[in-house]
Amino acid sequence: MQSSETSRPLILVTNDDGVTAPGIRTLISEMCLLGDVLVVAPDKPQSATGHAITINNTLYLQKLSNDGSFEEYSCSGTPVDCVKFAVNEILHRKPDLCVSGINHGSNSSINVIYSGTMSAAVEAGIEGIPAIGFSLSDYNWDANFEPCRPFVRSIAAQVLANGLPKGVVLNVNFPHPDKEFLGIKICRQANAMWQEKFDKRVSPLGKSYYWLTGTFVNLDQGTDTDEHALEAGYVSIVPTQFDLTAHHAISELNTWNWNE
Amino acid sequence: MQSSETSRPLILVTNDDGVTAPGIRTLISEMCLLGDVLVVAPDKPQSATGHAITINNTLYLQKLSNDGSFEEYSCSGTPVDCVKFAVNEILHRKPDLCVSGINHGSNSSINVIYSGTMSAAVEAGIEGIPAIGFSLSDYNWDANFEPCRPFVRSIAAQVLANGLPKGVVLNVNFPHPDKEFLGIKICRQANAMWQEKFDKRVSPLGKSYYWLTGTFVNLDQGTDTDEHALEAGYVSIVPTQFDLTAHHAISELNTWNWNE
Repeated sequence: MQSSETSRPLILVTNDDGVTAPGIRTLISEMCLLGDVLVVAPDKPQSATGHAITINNTLYLQKLSNDGSFEEYSCSGTPVDCVKFAVNEILHRKPDLCVSGINHGSNSSINVIYSGTMSAAVEAGIEGIPAIGFSLSDYNWDANFEPCRPFVRSIAAQVLANGLPKGVVLNVNFPHPDKEFLGIKICRQANAMWQEKFDKRVSPLGKSYYWLTGTFVNLDQGTDTDEHALEAGYVSIVPTQFDLTAHHAISELNTWNWNE
Repeated sequence: MQSSETSRPLILVTNDDGVTAPGIRTLISEMCLLGDVLVVAPDKPQSATGHAITINNTLYLQKLSNDGSFEEYSCSGTPVDCVKFAVNEILHRKPDLCVSGINHGSNSSINVIYSGTMSAAVEAGIEGIPAIGFSLSDYNWDANFEPCRPFVRSIAAQVLANGLPKGVVLNVNFPHPDKEFLGIKICRQANAMWQEKFDKRVSPLGKSYYWLTGTFVNLDQGTDTDEHALEAGYVSIVPTQFDLTAHHAISELNTWNWNE
């Protein structure tokens, strides 16, 4: 991509629902108001691919045509692959911001760890780029992203102006768009999990197979969580880290007799 | 799986290199010394799949034959899918321990986030099961896992006896087996990253494609890191968490003007 001759910030946009998803089209149009935009997004849906990367297979990158106001590529890999392609293959300088989404479906609470949307933002964070993942609590392809627009623009503008604390990316979730968004709350990730059920079926050839399904279980009664904020109609922002060390546990583990 | 009539612990074994990998065969044989073993592992290599799960495709589970001393299944999904299958479909009670590996290749430092081996252990942790990921700093299929055996047995026995701190799983990495293992060190994850390079090639049909390659860059001079311990010949253990909230950043972000 050509370096901008202007002082406009350079913004990388990606997602996990694929380059044609309405959520990313909304995000692109808002980012074009704030800076020069490069889109590198998966060529097909890649939901729940977490932080997967493609090391045992080949990757394809396709430049797409559009109205010319921004550059756009589709990639055969995962959301994290897309960020690596953008930063290491396409761009000649580090972007000022990476935004991922807007995801069709919530990535609050434990969902952050399964989410391709958030893993792309985390990968940008690892690369030293201020990064934000946006998700809407509506899984429908034709979900109403309009109420997200002013929040997306305002949050991105603040991060462009202030940067982010070291080692932190933002996980932004919007309530279901049927609710009016009451404002923004900074939250911690709720302690929740999925109780899975495998739906067993038989193929036309007589072979058993399964679909992974599950029920979301919130184990957390705290009023400072993302789940609580979303339920009350607020946009939740969880500062999310990628140093996975449980620093508080080091001293306890050092009391064990490891080397006897 | 039949519940054990004995008081032997129930141990779930998985990996990301696939059920036939020498690393998991070593781990199985050691775990059979400690308890009743259930193996559920991918039917093919799934390295670097991170915390991916299979929600847009079908899953297959195949019971395998062996000498009868333990139960064993292969699964068409990711390492995290394997853990979900074991806990929610196959077992009638929660395992006392989940071990993943022994991975062919290091999962120290930032590699923890890309690792299918560690993501399986993390998934078990989310399910409330004490869990350990083991990895050897040798990518070869015929790597020498013998020096790992006493450490694997001793670490697993300690976790069976003591449990683990809440919200923590262990990331255990062994130095290259050409070195003598000097002992165990409890560490933090080194601050490191990959500098990617995309190897561009042309297919026989004339289409450009890429291989993702990269160089590991350790940005961390600390003597308390896993990289430092491994380099010095020690087995590194990093307590690893799955609450990704950057709790320290919440107060700083609350000083921003989000709702103006």
